[in-house]
Amino acid sequence: MRNIAVKIMYDGSRYHGWQYQKNGITVQERMEQVLSELTNEKVSVTGCSRTDAGVHALEYVFNFKSETKIPIDRLPYAINTHLGNDSIAAVAAAEVAEDFNARFSSKGKRYVYKIWNSNIENPFTSNYSWFLPYKVDVRKMIDAAPMFCGTHDFSAFMAAGGSQKTTVRTIRDCVVKQSAEWDEQIEIEVEADAFLYNMVRIIAGTLAEVGMGRIEKDSIPEIIASCDRRRAGLTAPAEGLFLKKVFFDADLF
Amino acid sequence: MRNIAVKIMYDGSRYHGWQYQKNGITVQERMEQVLSELTNEKVSVTGCSRTDAGVHALEYVFNFKSETKIPIDRLPYAINTHLGNDSIAAVAAAEVAEDFNARFSSKGKRYVYKIWNSNIENPFTSNYSWFLPYKVDVRKMIDAAPMFCGTHDFSAFMAAGGSQKTTVRTIRDCVVKQSAEWDEQIEIEVEADAFLYNMVRIIAGTLAEVGMGRIEKDSIPEIIASCDRRRAGLTAPAEGLFLKKVFFDADLF
Repeated sequence: MRNIAVKIMYDGSRYHGWQYQKNGITVQERMEQVLSELTNEKVSVTGCSRTDAGVHALEYVFNFKSETKIPIDRLPYAINTHLGNDSIAAVAAAEVAEDFNARFSSKGKRYVYKIWNSNIENPFTSNYSWFLPYKVDVRKMIDAAPMFCGTHDFSAFMAAGGSQKTTVRTIRDCVVKQSAEWDEQIEIEVEADAFLYNMVRIIAGTLAEVGMGRIEKDSIPEIIASCDRRRAGLTAPAEGLFLKKVFFDADLF
Repeated sequence: MRNIAVKIMYDGSRYHGWQYQKNGITVQERMEQVLSELTNEKVSVTGCSRTDAGVHALEYVFNFKSETKIPIDRLPYAINTHLGNDSIAAVAAAEVAEDFNARFSSKGKRYVYKIWNSNIENPFTSNYSWFLPYKVDVRKMIDAAPMFCGTHDFSAFMAAGGSQKTTVRTIRDCVVKQSAEWDEQIEIEVEADAFLYNMVRIIAGTLAEVGMGRIEKDSIPEIIASCDRRRAGLTAPAEGLFLKKVFFDADLF
């Protein structure tokens, strides 16, 4: 039995997130359909994370087990041919060790959260950023971002519904910058060993509130220490969130 | 009677171009509907150019005459409220002189043409660039681009169907660069006093063929001088083209 890891990217606007569910098409379901067609097997895929409806992935990794003989370097093309114009693209594939699991073998992830900060919504970014038509001081956000770094109990930055054993996570990097493409776009990048449910979106909402002057930068350590969800900022909407990179022990692809 | 100029941007993927036509919704038609609703008049708009189906605009200017009392600074918001989620955004509006005409008063335009140069199509750019899965030497394209500059008869770079008096145009700037957002994306920017029908798309196709080694950079002056459409490169597809800037004697907005 081969264990195959696949790197994909997807535009989440058309999907009800990654994980299989009854009331809408998901990326997992679409990948299982395509791989089952390709291999003539009933394929189950294991994803690196459960992205919510509307969340995008510049890089997402899943794995599946199969007896297929398709050469590994042909697999992305075969998948893309089956997918057609489906807002998903297979970028690379690799054979991995038998015990590799895209979820549990992951050593960290990096997300980018995009904010469109203007009075006028941009039709090119409306599905790909949070439309925030308020005056935001980006400098304040830039200064506040590193205060999230380090190993903390991040339960103040977690939505109900997670099933984790611990709420301690290590944020390795948290930066805010202007986008290279649009002056009005602000990008927040956060990298951690793992994330709690909605953690990036609550950090993004909190940083936006810092930018709007509603939350003081210096209160961030206290908010973290409080472990009280009500003290953190709002949950920024899904459409601004992109999974950017998934880390494993070694480069897979 | 007020003469009002409006700056908009639009995602052309959903439209059959700018100009009114019978077999599909156009941006002109949508703007006339919205402005007629807003003003309770039968509004006709004059656009700065006839963009083809699928072509986008980062900046597009049209004007219309009306007795409306809507304050000029409120007009973009009023338009956007009526438009809803229609892939068009009104960005600014200004009162202009009685004889201003968005088409004939224009002193030049700047376009950007985007190429996605990879084996794998990117779901985020597929409606916004030409998917070109061949090996392209961007350096060659960068070197070739300035050869289009100057005042020439560009009839070799014109599709049939134009109705212009002369085919002489002045290209003020023509540059190729890597996109700031994606490594695999190549951007061609062309600025001229005016353009012939499909001129930017034929220049983009010709530059892509230079990048692929099918056309020699040094043959560009001869191709221009030949005035023979068959000697230039192919017409790059509409979805990669963006109107980026429209110039007038003075800044309108």
